[in-house]
Amino acid sequence: MATGQGSEAAAVGEAQRLIEELGARARAAARQLAHASSQAKDAALLRMAEELVSAQDEILRINQQEWEDAQQAGRPAAFVDRLRLTPARVRGMAQGLRSVASLPDPVGEGLWRRVRPNGLVIEAVRVPLGVIGIIYEARPNVTADAAGLCLKAGNAVILRGGHEALQTNRAIVSSLRRGLEQAGLPADAVLLVERPERATAVALMQARGWVDVLIPRGGAQLIQTVVQESKVPVIETGVGNCHTYVDAAADLDMALEIVYNAKCQRPSVCNAMETLLVHAAVADRFLPAMAARLEAAGVELRGCPRVRERLPHVREATEEDWATEYLDLILAVKVVDSLDEAIAHINHYGSGHSEAIVTRDYLAAQRFLDEVDAACVYVNASTRFSDGEQFGMGAEIGISTQKLHARGPMGLEELTTRKFRVYGQGQVRKD
Amino acid sequence: MATGQGSEAAAVGEAQRLIEELGARARAAARQLAHASSQAKDAALLRMAEELVSAQDEILRINQQEWEDAQQAGRPAAFVDRLRLTPARVRGMAQGLRSVASLPDPVGEGLWRRVRPNGLVIEAVRVPLGVIGIIYEARPNVTADAAGLCLKAGNAVILRGGHEALQTNRAIVSSLRRGLEQAGLPADAVLLVERPERATAVALMQARGWVDVLIPRGGAQLIQTVVQESKVPVIETGVGNCHTYVDAAADLDMALEIVYNAKCQRPSVCNAMETLLVHAAVADRFLPAMAARLEAAGVELRGCPRVRERLPHVREATEEDWATEYLDLILAVKVVDSLDEAIAHINHYGSGHSEAIVTRDYLAAQRFLDEVDAACVYVNASTRFSDGEQFGMGAEIGISTQKLHARGPMGLEELTTRKFRVYGQGQVRKD
Repeated sequence: MATGQGSEAAAVGEAQRLIEELGARARAAARQLAHASSQAKDAALLRMAEELVSAQDEILRINQQEWEDAQQAGRPAAFVDRLRLTPARVRGMAQGLRSVASLPDPVGEGLWRRVRPNGLVIEAVRVPLGVIGIIYEARPNVTADAAGLCLKAGNAVILRGGHEALQTNRAIVSSLRRGLEQAGLPADAVLLVERPERATAVALMQARGWVDVLIPRGGAQLIQTVVQESKVPVIETGVGNCHTYVDAAADLDMALEIVYNAKCQRPSVCNAMETLLVHAAVADRFLPAMAARLEAAGVELRGCPRVRERLPHVREATEEDWATEYLDLILAVKVVDSLDEAIAHINHYGSGHSEAIVTRDYLAAQRFLDEVDAACVYVNASTRFSDGEQFGMGAEIGISTQKLHARGPMGLEELTTRKFRVYGQGQVRKD
Repeated sequence: MATGQGSEAAAVGEAQRLIEELGARARAAARQLAHASSQAKDAALLRMAEELVSAQDEILRINQQEWEDAQQAGRPAAFVDRLRLTPARVRGMAQGLRSVASLPDPVGEGLWRRVRPNGLVIEAVRVPLGVIGIIYEARPNVTADAAGLCLKAGNAVILRGGHEALQTNRAIVSSLRRGLEQAGLPADAVLLVERPERATAVALMQARGWVDVLIPRGGAQLIQTVVQESKVPVIETGVGNCHTYVDAAADLDMALEIVYNAKCQRPSVCNAMETLLVHAAVADRFLPAMAARLEAAGVELRGCPRVRERLPHVREATEEDWATEYLDLILAVKVVDSLDEAIAHINHYGSGHSEAIVTRDYLAAQRFLDEVDAACVYVNASTRFSDGEQFGMGAEIGISTQKLHARGPMGLEELTTRKFRVYGQGQVRKD
């Protein structure tokens, strides 16, 4: 065995020990949190917000060093921007914690209660998941947001953020832990992996028994790595190759507003539109108006041959374009001959996130809602609404694109599971 | 590369192609099933039951060859018994399909509906999961049971049973597919992996995009393999290291009945008790009566030193005993000094399946229900009730011991997910 492999094995062993130690501490905290009252949890969230604001100067000083380092290391501007905190962003994090405190507590809710013929009373009750692992990139705001949501739902959280934000995360987590202690809750409800190497991410993905669920937050590559490698159950979030289909029976003015909003209002997020499908019957009227409006906003269009007949200046879309989540001011455009073709295209290329039809045709609307296989399906609205807050679920921890456990925006309820409480008077089974 | 590895790689490639072909057929069937009416699905279930009964003689003839082969190959009696079909068992499978037809259809149920301040109407609606993979051992009854439940919930199913039952499964699946066709539903709603080698199981575990969820059914080793290796989301089922705790304040007559039932009524199943915990205050009175009753039923006891002080003939329990799911007439017994010690033991050694306390003490009962971390927690009843039918959920596909998606008995609702249907009038996002 080469020396490199030997030291790698040592690093893996050390990472496993670290994660097991954190796992054991998180598990112990989770057992306490499971019975913490809403009052205690809300008091802790408010204290955490105060501690965050008190530590603001220190957090910003530490953070400045980190984003300047990232800038000097030649990281892209978008990366540096996500890493960088400002007074307004720290206030936003504190406000987020206060908002979570004001949401109803999902824990303890009765899902159903049945009295069985033999007299057994069976209650299905909402309980915390236990220990949640979050693997994310260098976005320090996720640290406070995720900790707040996990705590409110009665869970301990192990945070494994990007290494470029390690010192910032340390400062944030220590203020959150101070808030927990002041409120009489275990500080270990919020734990940071202080060695953000690949080995600790791998160890977290293998920590069955210590971690009940892993939620990766970040780019498509991070999420795919976690989904592929994790032995802990994962909730896949975030990738949104979203479509808008402008039907033959669309109100074209409405369609233009919706398409503009879905592409341009915030192109870097998962619920932004990436491909526009236009029915052939309205292509001559719609495409030129759409191109004028979107190109004026800086959008680069890529079209199928039938789009390019009408808009010859547009670059040809390749097979890859139909499958790409640009997260940028780029839009793939295709002319289709029917609703069926639109649905088939979406079900083939879509990521199951958010899909919209613009139409005044009742049957087309219903068929689109029924047959498109995605977490969120829309008639006559922008896909940009796919969001826990917009859906009235309070804050969200992410948007699930898998079908197991949670699909679509995930709020506090999605950070819980159930437990069956059975009340007997001596019943035994006879059959 | 050795030749062996080369041919193994070829086998893996072939298995992947087979599973992808089945996956594509299942996906196409699932899209049709998602909009099949309850009437159509129930008609199909009844036709499937009839076809099964019509084919009974042929199925039994094929099955006899298989169980005789297994017997000659020296397979254990319990294995041969699970593989073997009888006229009564085939009738039971048909009756199971008819029962599923009589259950309410979970698909289309509205989970909630909200009108948002901007006028958007958001509905959360129950929809099928899509394509479900079942990996199981040589138990042909699972073939019909799983197919019926998956179909009723609008899902296509890919069945990968043990190779010892391949011909029996073929005969069962072809009768089920005839029933589907007669009812006008796609036969590909039920697909059998006709090459039950390890490579096809591996390919099924890697079939992300084709298979939405895998449910392993069988022994602990099969389940652990699937949990460890699968890249498709898995629901972990079945392992039950279940405890009964006889509290200081227990009604000891009731405790004896519950303990006897939990251990002896059907020792081979996951909700049977494996470890008995007895409070020291009642050990002198309870242990001799318990030993007399259970040993008369053929139970072998294994005890901690304090049990052996009272029952010197009992063999000493090792650390391994506390962690073992015997599935047999063996019981580990431990004396504890407190409710806290009982809860700590259960949370340390238990598999999170079903745990019971026998007590007349209100606070002890509530603390046990709150603090034991398991899918099903009982006061004064036998753990043997952990079962979808016993809980009033209709038939069950298994009992989940994980927290994600479903925990505890899984019925039809647990074979569904949700979809958000959003009705707009041109709304776009402004913030």
